[in-house]
Amino acid sequence: MFSGLSAFPLTPMNESGIDEAAFVRLIERLADASVDSIGALGSTGSYAYLSRAERARVVKLAVEHAGNVPVIAGIGALRTSDVQALSDDAQKAGASAVLLAPMSYQQLSADEVFGLYETVTRSLSVPLCVYDNPGTTHFEFSSELYGRIAQLPNVRSIKIPGVPANPAAAKAHIESLRALIPSHVTLGVSGDASAAMGLNSGCEAWYSVIGGLFPKTALAITRAAQAGDMKAATRLSERLQPLWALFDQHGGSLRVVAAAAELQGVVEHPCLPLPLKALDGTGRQQLAVLLDELELA
Amino acid sequence: MFSGLSAFPLTPMNESGIDEAAFVRLIERLADASVDSIGALGSTGSYAYLSRAERARVVKLAVEHAGNVPVIAGIGALRTSDVQALSDDAQKAGASAVLLAPMSYQQLSADEVFGLYETVTRSLSVPLCVYDNPGTTHFEFSSELYGRIAQLPNVRSIKIPGVPANPAAAKAHIESLRALIPSHVTLGVSGDASAAMGLNSGCEAWYSVIGGLFPKTALAITRAAQAGDMKAATRLSERLQPLWALFDQHGGSLRVVAAAAELQGVVEHPCLPLPLKALDGTGRQQLAVLLDELELA
Repeated sequence: MFSGLSAFPLTPMNESGIDEAAFVRLIERLADASVDSIGALGSTGSYAYLSRAERARVVKLAVEHAGNVPVIAGIGALRTSDVQALSDDAQKAGASAVLLAPMSYQQLSADEVFGLYETVTRSLSVPLCVYDNPGTTHFEFSSELYGRIAQLPNVRSIKIPGVPANPAAAKAHIESLRALIPSHVTLGVSGDASAAMGLNSGCEAWYSVIGGLFPKTALAITRAAQAGDMKAATRLSERLQPLWALFDQHGGSLRVVAAAAELQGVVEHPCLPLPLKALDGTGRQQLAVLLDELELA
Repeated sequence: MFSGLSAFPLTPMNESGIDEAAFVRLIERLADASVDSIGALGSTGSYAYLSRAERARVVKLAVEHAGNVPVIAGIGALRTSDVQALSDDAQKAGASAVLLAPMSYQQLSADEVFGLYETVTRSLSVPLCVYDNPGTTHFEFSSELYGRIAQLPNVRSIKIPGVPANPAAAKAHIESLRALIPSHVTLGVSGDASAAMGLNSGCEAWYSVIGGLFPKTALAITRAAQAGDMKAATRLSERLQPLWALFDQHGGSLRVVAAAAELQGVVEHPCLPLPLKALDGTGRQQLAVLLDELELA
């Protein structure tokens, strides 16, 4: 479950609530493509913006429509007691694993973050993936903290941010992490632009945003890297460079992928919770041209 | 209401819920000291960590025990629809005004933030204070955006972060903001260390963390500045320099003020929502010595 392609779908919604039909369509695309796991309620799934009831419902729908694909459910929240409640809900809804980011309002200390994982892992009956996303949590994990948390019960994977762009530096980075982390804990790369580099450098998984909308495209990169064909993985990723550039220009992947899903007719407009808005204007026009050219699937 | 000392109390709590008796004691201290307003559910009041029901209860308690002092209630949340619900709740509970920070998980654009204030101010029947706290929201307001938001209905104050340490630069900064903001909208300084400089430079209000626990100490600084005695305001603030240094060393004021409230016996330990922890160890010992030396009240 914590290797290969983990696909992170949007949770399409509008001011009336979650668009359940559109969410189910996204999940069925992923099941049909046979991704290795589904990351429901990741950052791309807007977990931080949903109520407890909405989150329980999303996990239930994902599990019901994922076929044999395991569902990893995001349980992050600002307050430890809320994380514990969301963890219980996710397990009751049938999630195969949970994903926990140290969400913050007040900047967290390493000691506070360790305390969070210690408390939450103590009462888990499914595996946990540590979610390191400094762009949204504003918390920087040290390698040493990865190592300490990886020793906790039920921890089975760490979702790391992008790796260095230089191949030797990327490989050295992953090797240095591996030296601190037990072998039963996998490392998964995120930041789609550096996924091929991450997989080629020894990451076992790709926690993927584009995988949630274009699973076949993301699977082609993943399978090439898993087969040891580093050049093919790199080439397939470099082909998507104009998309990675749009992510960079527009504050990350979410607003771009939301607009892509709207443009492809997979979800309705709007699909993000206000105040967030999908990419519009010139950027959206550029994206429409790109989607035609790249033939993403 | 949006001038003078606005005191921001803690919301003391533990894993069982809010310590209502301790919260009421804090509010009564502020009413007894005759602060100019009370900022309930500011960042110091841990608004981001509380449930909707808890927040409604906190505003009700504050209003009930504030006597004639107006209560400004924090209504920030990640999702616009939640902010609207919290705004309704605060008004029903008797808040005299609301305070809104652009909380983020995904980094917000200026357009998204303007949209948030536009939506929320449209259905308000009390005044609103814009809450600019980049350390927790990770959003940087431009002066131009201040100006646009200040034109919206019901906007009456902007809570700005600290001002430059140099007196001429601080004065120039406030004057440049005043040129963009209508005169019916006050400017209030936050960041306790630069409060005296802010008031001396033309800010009409101090949105104060220490004012929530030590109202007399904060009032002395405020009244000196309001009376035009800039030197006295500066001297009274500089006396507290070791406290400002502790704020800097420990990631802001919250954990230090929480520990101060515990040390003074005003609240029980713990008083912050996990994963947050009040200052402990050597820092707490330094704080205890300081509290004795400074005779804060």
